[in-house]
Amino acid sequence: MGIHNYFKSLSDLEGINRCPGKFKYQEHSVASHSFKVTKIAQFLATVEEADGTVIDWKRLYEKAINHDYAELFTGDIKTPVKYAMPELKELFSQVEDMMIKNFIEKEFPAEFQSIYHERFAEGKDESIEGRILAVADKIDLLYESFGEIQRGNPEPLFLEIYQEALSTILKFQEMPCVQYFVENILQEMLEEGVIPYSQIYKLTKNILGR
Amino acid sequence: MGIHNYFKSLSDLEGINRCPGKFKYQEHSVASHSFKVTKIAQFLATVEEADGTVIDWKRLYEKAINHDYAELFTGDIKTPVKYAMPELKELFSQVEDMMIKNFIEKEFPAEFQSIYHERFAEGKDESIEGRILAVADKIDLLYESFGEIQRGNPEPLFLEIYQEALSTILKFQEMPCVQYFVENILQEMLEEGVIPYSQIYKLTKNILGR
Amino acid sequence: MGIHNYFKSLSDLEGINRCPGKFKYQEHSVASHSFKVTKIAQFLATVEEADGTVIDWKRLYEKAINHDYAELFTGDIKTPVKYAMPELKELFSQVEDMMIKNFIEKEFPAEFQSIYHERFAEGKDESIEGRILAVADKIDLLYESFGEIQRGNPEPLFLEIYQEALSTILKFQEMPCVQYFVENILQEMLEEGVIPYSQIYKLTKNILGR
Amino acid sequence: MGIHNYFKSLSDLEGINRCPGKFKYQEHSVASHSFKVTKIAQFLATVEEADGTVIDWKRLYEKAINHDYAELFTGDIKTPVKYAMPELKELFSQVEDMMIKNFIEKEFPAEFQSIYHERFAEGKDESIEGRILAVADKIDLLYESFGEIQRGNPEPLFLEIYQEALSTILKFQEMPCVQYFVENILQEMLEEGVIPYSQIYKLTKNILGR
Amino acid sequence: MGIHNYFKSLSDLEGINRCPGKFKYQEHSVASHSFKVTKIAQFLATVEEADGTVIDWKRLYEKAINHDYAELFTGDIKTPVKYAMPELKELFSQVEDMMIKNFIEKEFPAEFQSIYHERFAEGKDESIEGRILAVADKIDLLYESFGEIQRGNPEPLFLEIYQEALSTILKFQEMPCVQYFVENILQEMLEEGVIPYSQIYKLTKNILGR
Amino acid sequence: MGIHNYFKSLSDLEGINRCPGKFKYQEHSVASHSFKVTKIAQFLATVEEADGTVIDWKRLYEKAINHDYAELFTGDIKTPVKYAMPELKELFSQVEDMMIKNFIEKEFPAEFQSIYHERFAEGKDESIEGRILAVADKIDLLYESFGEIQRGNPEPLFLEIYQEALSTILKFQEMPCVQYFVENILQEMLEEGVIPYSQIYKLTKNILGR
Repeated sequence: MGIHNYFKSLSDLEGINRCPGKFKYQEHSVASHSFKVTKIAQFLATVEEADGTVIDWKRLYEKAINHDYAELFTGDIKTPVKYAMPELKELFSQVEDMMIKNFIEKEFPAEFQSIYHERFAEGKDESIEGRILAVADKIDLLYESFGEIQRGNPEPLFLEIYQEALSTILKFQEMPCVQYFVENILQEMLEEGVIPYSQIYKLTKNILGR
Repeated sequence: MGIHNYFKSLSDLEGINRCPGKFKYQEHSVASHSFKVTKIAQFLATVEEADGTVIDWKRLYEKAINHDYAELFTGDIKTPVKYAMPELKELFSQVEDMMIKNFIEKEFPAEFQSIYHERFAEGKDESIEGRILAVADKIDLLYESFGEIQRGNPEPLFLEIYQEALSTILKFQEMPCVQYFVENILQEMLEEGVIPYSQIYKLTKNILGR
Repeated sequence: MGIHNYFKSLSDLEGINRCPGKFKYQEHSVASHSFKVTKIAQFLATVEEADGTVIDWKRLYEKAINHDYAELFTGDIKTPVKYAMPELKELFSQVEDMMIKNFIEKEFPAEFQSIYHERFAEGKDESIEGRILAVADKIDLLYESFGEIQRGNPEPLFLEIYQEALSTILKFQEMPCVQYFVENILQEMLEEGVIPYSQIYKLTKNILGR
Repeated sequence: MGIHNYFKSLSDLEGINRCPGKFKYQEHSVASHSFKVTKIAQFLATVEEADGTVIDWKRLYEKAINHDYAELFTGDIKTPVKYAMPELKELFSQVEDMMIKNFIEKEFPAEFQSIYHERFAEGKDESIEGRILAVADKIDLLYESFGEIQRGNPEPLFLEIYQEALSTILKFQEMPCVQYFVENILQEMLEEGVIPYSQIYKLTKNILGR
Repeated sequence: MGIHNYFKSLSDLEGINRCPGKFKYQEHSVASHSFKVTKIAQFLATVEEADGTVIDWKRLYEKAINHDYAELFTGDIKTPVKYAMPELKELFSQVEDMMIKNFIEKEFPAEFQSIYHERFAEGKDESIEGRILAVADKIDLLYESFGEIQRGNPEPLFLEIYQEALSTILKFQEMPCVQYFVENILQEMLEEGVIPYSQIYKLTKNILGR
Repeated sequence: MGIHNYFKSLSDLEGINRCPGKFKYQEHSVASHSFKVTKIAQFLATVEEADGTVIDWKRLYEKAINHDYAELFTGDIKTPVKYAMPELKELFSQVEDMMIKNFIEKEFPAEFQSIYHERFAEGKDESIEGRILAVADKIDLLYESFGEIQRGNPEPLFLEIYQEALSTILKFQEMPCVQYFVENILQEMLEEGVIPYSQIYKLTKNILGR
């Protein structure tokens, strides 16, 4: 029944957790993932712009903030399932498009439908904004898996996710923002390391010894 | 790498929530749903047996305890997606079968593979045990949606789920266990009702008035 | 230690709950609030643009996605505290600015500092984008409080929040997007209503009576 | 081994939930229950003192803050179990005493053992402080069950708990603090009531009508 | 009020956490424990049957799925309490039996009472099915404690639980299914190990070095 | 509306988490922190008394149980904010006093107002009870940060909190209870250490080797 249903659906994305099933120290919802990807994309585009690339900011933000909205209709379908058979991926893609199309036609007033058809289309195209979104999406996934490994999660899946995310980021290594990420941010991230228990021992001795 | 992975996967089902996204007062995992469906199926089969039907108990329990195990591989795919296109449903079913097949061949020793292929096959067939499972699965869904409505969830989806679950149960109304459910358990459930705030008022007055 | 700390801080906003202390059926983090406000602002700006107003989309998205980032430094300070004394509000504002300034100078490379000083400045100015943000922020707050009341939260605070949010929205009633909200979305929201327990009774009778 | 184990055990009480099993909108731990009972007892004793009764404040606080510490050793044993057989209750009481005794002798230095034996003894004796504790414990239970009923919990158990708690409080109705509670606080509590959905409708109309 | 109360009680087991109090990275409910034990027992019995032992599958499943149902009535009573005094354990056992007896007589129709008296009786007898249940119950406990240790829980209790569980399993080492568990599954479990932080460092270097 | 509002507010403190934002393995509420600080203060005062110091127990307990009640009005304001400017801290302090004053005058009957003004005043004064409170508050903070580090939290903030807490405790090192803490409890705490994964390996070997 109209835009109210659209606004209400935003809150549903707060209740869809990423990577369900596997034990995680920290859960992340699709809503907060979308927030973080938009902020990361903002930074990456800032680097690109400083390098002289023209950014269509309206397009970038639209792509980033909407990029996982379709999970509302399809739920969390595990990647291996989607990619198990080429025909399935193709059909699945058709169904996704159809459901978003139906939602827009049912809930949005006629005058805004074409705008939202475009906003909810797949964002990761060949444009500079599409490529920035692809990188930002993987950077957030890298942080999620890094957080688990750093906190001691023994599940090998998170190493695989980390590896897959970083490898995908590097496919875009001709982009200045990816070079910036690899040379600066990734280094800072890895340097953070862990805190061995012995450190609390030393620290205590130091304080007591004063 | 072997049965350890199978045992570990059981715990993953504790982390997959049913009906993700929609606000619920109470969450239910696939693991505890499987427990409840098995207990409900046990009762329904007891009613059938009392009516003179021969129950293959081994088969019944196998069907009930394993009936949602495949969600481990596919995640929670929303029903409307599955049913959106007949070809998708068919392909999806093929992929599910393929993933379970791969899992069994990768993790189980050769001598147990055929047993587990059978155990993880679709359980809701035309046999008496398959029909009991179909009913038990819907009774638990009915309880989940009833619990939300009774506690004041304004989301119309739960009324729809309740309606769909009850309608499906009634498709099996020639079964004595369904008749027992409708005539006895459903009545008791509905009679539970809600507790209006005024009742606490009256109760307090009564106690103070003594 | 650089942009890594900035990216990591985004996840901290997932762990800051809005309106702490008061019992709520559903919690909302600052991260997912920021996501929702950006999506709502996107729709409101679409309505304004359809009405002929020129929107600076880059500015709008920057304001929306960043508008609560400062809560990272200050934590959740209850509104009555901030507004208790004009001098406190003024001083508090100075401290907030100082902390953001320090963070940018410590973590951001020199070339991006001025850009981020601007992005983290107070967004709710008199510009059309600033006013859209002010409205979008209150619409999400309205939804949060409406959700609690609709689900049966007896806490009068949520009625007060609802009232304050709606009154603030109406201060912008000369804006076409506010008129659109009041005439369409608010009506749809209120019509949703609640689901009385008797409805499940009727529904069951209907299904059984078929 | 030693007082460290005692200090660490306090945090275990944060992880023991009251009334496990039954669906509740809001969970309460034994740690926060102990906090609330101590604060309530403080108020009740203030009323008694104003009425001229001499309060041994040291004793009162010791009783209140320690009254559920033994749940650390015994876990949450449901009341009906404890009271099912008189011999069981008696034996159970002996075991509880024995476990506390062992804990003190194992973890506390000799010089403090007798003090802690006294502190961990059953607090609800016939003294004024013991009776205040008995009342304060039931007032917090009354608030817990009231909160559930007010928020729409259809579980009849909470009405029973409310009834049992209020009846027990009234057994002490010769105490001025109980009279104060019944005449003032209980009235205020009941007047809080619920917020019918129609109120949001009216409020909205009022605001829009201005 | 009949079988409805029985069905509703299944959901209560979703709200009873195992080993309350002690800090755990991952919580497990009695409901999902029952699910896992049934699945583990199914595998163990499959091994036994392959070895030539005749399994009464109906009996096995009944024992496994019902084995902790009595915790509904008694709550989580810590093991040291139960075993503190032989008389207490004996009396406690009597009370448990009495409460289950009362529940069945109150909620179940006369024709099913004897069946359920048998189903809710203590399952860990000397039969092959009883011994498989005893082993399956300890294997799930072993996994629970292993999960905590592997994720870095410094609480020595989990080492003790692990030790106690493994020692109990080995008491049944004449059973082929226990030999299978020790020789295969336990090895796979231990080989899983932990993921040292240095691995993420190496992995990153490898990917960057390509 | 009277003391009911005061009693109800105690439950709000169960919903205010300490140190929001930063990832923690274990959350602690203001309510349970208050409980723990009171219990720790009780022990510290016992040590002081054994050393010959006269303790005003009534005053000690009042200080401990009430020491964070004001967070109800102000929310969680991050320490660096409070201390960023001397004038802010001063003004902030004034506002806090004003809000507590208003609350007491609005909710408490006239006869109890002066008592509660005193109870809610800042407790950490120069008296022996005020100093014990200051130490107890920091000991609980030390335990909170120690727990995170011991469980593997890589966030450096918790090392800083640990350091700050221990340093503050040592400022009171002329107090016998602080000497007792440093010489006994702190040692026991540090000796607890962590459990390396290799230990589970050895333990398993030992059990299997028997």
